[in-house]
Amino acid sequence: MNTKLVLKLNGYILLFDVFAMVLPLIVAGIYKESTGMAFLPVMLLCLAVAIPLIRIKPQKRDLFAREGLVTVALAWIIMSFVGGLPFFFSREIPNLIDCFFESASGFTTTGATILTDIEAMSKCMLFWRSFTHWIGGMGVLMFVLAIAPLAGGNNMQLIRAESPGPQVEKLLPKANSTAKVLYGMYIGLTVLQVIFLMFGNMPLFDALTTAFGTAGTGGFAIKSSSMGGYSQYTQIVVTVFMLLFSVNFNIYFFIIAKKFSSIWKNEELRAFAIIVFASIALITLNTVQLFENLGGAIHHSSFAVATIISTSGFSTVDFNTWPDFSKTLLVVLMFIGACAGSTGGGIKVSRILIMFKSLKREFFVLIHPRSVKTIRISGKKIDDETVKKVNSYMICYILLFFISFLIISFDNFGFETNFTAVAATLNNIGPGLGAVGPAGNFAAFSPLSKIVFAIDMICGRLELFPILILFLPHTWKKY
Amino acid sequence: MNTKLVLKLNGYILLFDVFAMVLPLIVAGIYKESTGMAFLPVMLLCLAVAIPLIRIKPQKRDLFAREGLVTVALAWIIMSFVGGLPFFFSREIPNLIDCFFESASGFTTTGATILTDIEAMSKCMLFWRSFTHWIGGMGVLMFVLAIAPLAGGNNMQLIRAESPGPQVEKLLPKANSTAKVLYGMYIGLTVLQVIFLMFGNMPLFDALTTAFGTAGTGGFAIKSSSMGGYSQYTQIVVTVFMLLFSVNFNIYFFIIAKKFSSIWKNEELRAFAIIVFASIALITLNTVQLFENLGGAIHHSSFAVATIISTSGFSTVDFNTWPDFSKTLLVVLMFIGACAGSTGGGIKVSRILIMFKSLKREFFVLIHPRSVKTIRISGKKIDDETVKKVNSYMICYILLFFISFLIISFDNFGFETNFTAVAATLNNIGPGLGAVGPAGNFAAFSPLSKIVFAIDMICGRLELFPILILFLPHTWKKY
Repeated sequence: MNTKLVLKLNGYILLFDVFAMVLPLIVAGIYKESTGMAFLPVMLLCLAVAIPLIRIKPQKRDLFAREGLVTVALAWIIMSFVGGLPFFFSREIPNLIDCFFESASGFTTTGATILTDIEAMSKCMLFWRSFTHWIGGMGVLMFVLAIAPLAGGNNMQLIRAESPGPQVEKLLPKANSTAKVLYGMYIGLTVLQVIFLMFGNMPLFDALTTAFGTAGTGGFAIKSSSMGGYSQYTQIVVTVFMLLFSVNFNIYFFIIAKKFSSIWKNEELRAFAIIVFASIALITLNTVQLFENLGGAIHHSSFAVATIISTSGFSTVDFNTWPDFSKTLLVVLMFIGACAGSTGGGIKVSRILIMFKSLKREFFVLIHPRSVKTIRISGKKIDDETVKKVNSYMICYILLFFISFLIISFDNFGFETNFTAVAATLNNIGPGLGAVGPAGNFAAFSPLSKIVFAIDMICGRLELFPILILFLPHTWKKY
Repeated sequence: MNTKLVLKLNGYILLFDVFAMVLPLIVAGIYKESTGMAFLPVMLLCLAVAIPLIRIKPQKRDLFAREGLVTVALAWIIMSFVGGLPFFFSREIPNLIDCFFESASGFTTTGATILTDIEAMSKCMLFWRSFTHWIGGMGVLMFVLAIAPLAGGNNMQLIRAESPGPQVEKLLPKANSTAKVLYGMYIGLTVLQVIFLMFGNMPLFDALTTAFGTAGTGGFAIKSSSMGGYSQYTQIVVTVFMLLFSVNFNIYFFIIAKKFSSIWKNEELRAFAIIVFASIALITLNTVQLFENLGGAIHHSSFAVATIISTSGFSTVDFNTWPDFSKTLLVVLMFIGACAGSTGGGIKVSRILIMFKSLKREFFVLIHPRSVKTIRISGKKIDDETVKKVNSYMICYILLFFISFLIISFDNFGFETNFTAVAATLNNIGPGLGAVGPAGNFAAFSPLSKIVFAIDMICGRLELFPILILFLPHTWKKY
């Protein structure tokens, strides 16, 4: 382990935190909120730690897998902790574990909350809460990509650690340029959503925070009723943008480059579209009697499907009161998640596709024992190494799921709440069913459970491995 | 597909059914029950179909994977259907789908029931119900092994299709001799349990049916209170034998052959023992306040852990009323299941071990990218093909689980009942939680759900693949 390099990089992360907190400070200034003062000691603390870290001069500047994974893992843990401190110092969230939970939920773009009265929070804190989604959304990666070159050497390992899912392609030969293009698209889409929202007479503050939550597929709302109190137009805009942000960003690159055939050939996108439309149709049929008319059923079903599969977590109505079938289908969508290379979470459509295809191959070999068959996605050969990685991911995922499920069951919230609470955090969604449904929150869980949820959120966001290798003694061996 | 051979083999299966029904007929004679007459038309029907089938002379007599898998799959479906007919003709179960469910639950050694008043059934029907467990327990395989040679040629493919789990070793060079040894041990252990039960003053009829249910790790009881009404001694005997029947039968072969070092080296057995003892300890601690003393808590926790991990499904108390943690742990054990090469169901400890070890390897490779590491279980190298098969199995399992979970959710029994009902049938356990808990049953589900459960039970018992390839058009191609 090249500890010096890891420390230096985390110094930059802390420095970045200082810059990020300038924005909510400005918001506090605009609304003349004294709670904004809570950001100052945090910024000073970050600076005090960051400066000596940045000054470290590592002997080797190459970033290998091990250092890359550890840096990313530590970065998210540090950001979650530091990001929660303003809540604590302002006394708006008096419990430190609750602060960590809320901040981790923000940076991991989960959107699960321990707040029981969201409207009681000051504007600058609400802004910060939503802004953490936006930062987390595209991944600390983008910032790390801009920072890591400062440390010199090869930084492709970091991308491998952070990129969501197995299918992020290198868009441009240099990682740095890729970062800039993706980052540009991310900002562009966010601005576009703000414009669309304001066009529907949404106030700027609401539009900004909502767009932050949508872009990161986070789901923190600034009202207890989430999107329920806004107009149908606003809800439709959010539905559309949630889906746009859960698509592989390569697609937008193809649009810019006018490579439309590449879009059509993208199997993950096709599978995603089929799942979305089929789910909307099924849930509409299943819930139509709950709404005034078919239009209402389609509207709210679409919102629910988009919010869950994109792993955002906004809500218009309480789907907790829907029939079992719709709820179960939503739970299935929680696990599927968004496309790889998007800001969404979950297992990812591409992984599901790879699993399906490897299963199909296995059946084929069972019947024709002497045959050889390769797996292809969007025409590209998927090698055995990738299939193996997907399988390991799933084993790891299931293991983490059941361990979390067991630990939080001590709180006795019942099977449905326990199961979906883990699903909602590990897949970075936010609300689940039962006590953690759209109308509920995570406040009543024990401190132990909240820590488990926070770890699940970070593990889910970082695709498990970076966090888990922190616990392997091997990782920390000197070489 | 060599259809002629498949048909011929299924003729033998039907013939076997006729012989099997002689026993409940004798029971009906002893207790002078007129309902026993219901077996006669079924036996005649079977004979009428079996004789022409057996007379078929297939040109090729070699049994390839495809024919082996299809034969086994059809055999279980036919047996489940035929086995349910006596219930129907006697009018003790008036609905045909219920009969199929109950019979499939018997032959797959699941033990899930649609009966609301078990004591109202006649003795010969209760005997038949438990006897189906015993037949199913060691697998139709054993009989097929004795029958398949009649068709001549190579029959190792059948063993591959039927053997529970990835780890059944060839004990003796010839499959036929292996069958006889295993069969002998199975009968021996059953007789031993009957003796132990009668030693505790259990009536012969109760002892026989209980031993049948234990040997097959089935769990059909002849009383609504399951094992709740019997003495503590009886409950302990059942606990011990449930565990004995969930161990790989190779272990008993090693005992007979005095190869004690092989037993000690068996990693699956060690893992199984650790899981059992750790679970008993945890559940005892979690439930101790519910019982009069620590002894009672240990007693009932041990029974619950044994009944679930062995996938039997007997019960002494209603664990549905236990705290969430104990219930969640039992749900986890439902999925783990027994050892490979036993009569138990579930995912199997050996598969879990292989998954763990492949995950460990993946982590190792992540940190040391240029290293090569092989997976070993009990000192034996596990090749990549086996790891792949385990992964395919898991994908298939998860897929089937969620599809079933979705379909049965139409009945609106709530998340806990729906989830555990699928877990209890797919893993061949019997009772789940909620409405299908130890005090409940499957009677209230819709006919569609009951068919889904029956398919899950058969899929689970046959380790998924044989049933699923029935639905592949490829399977039915002539060659």
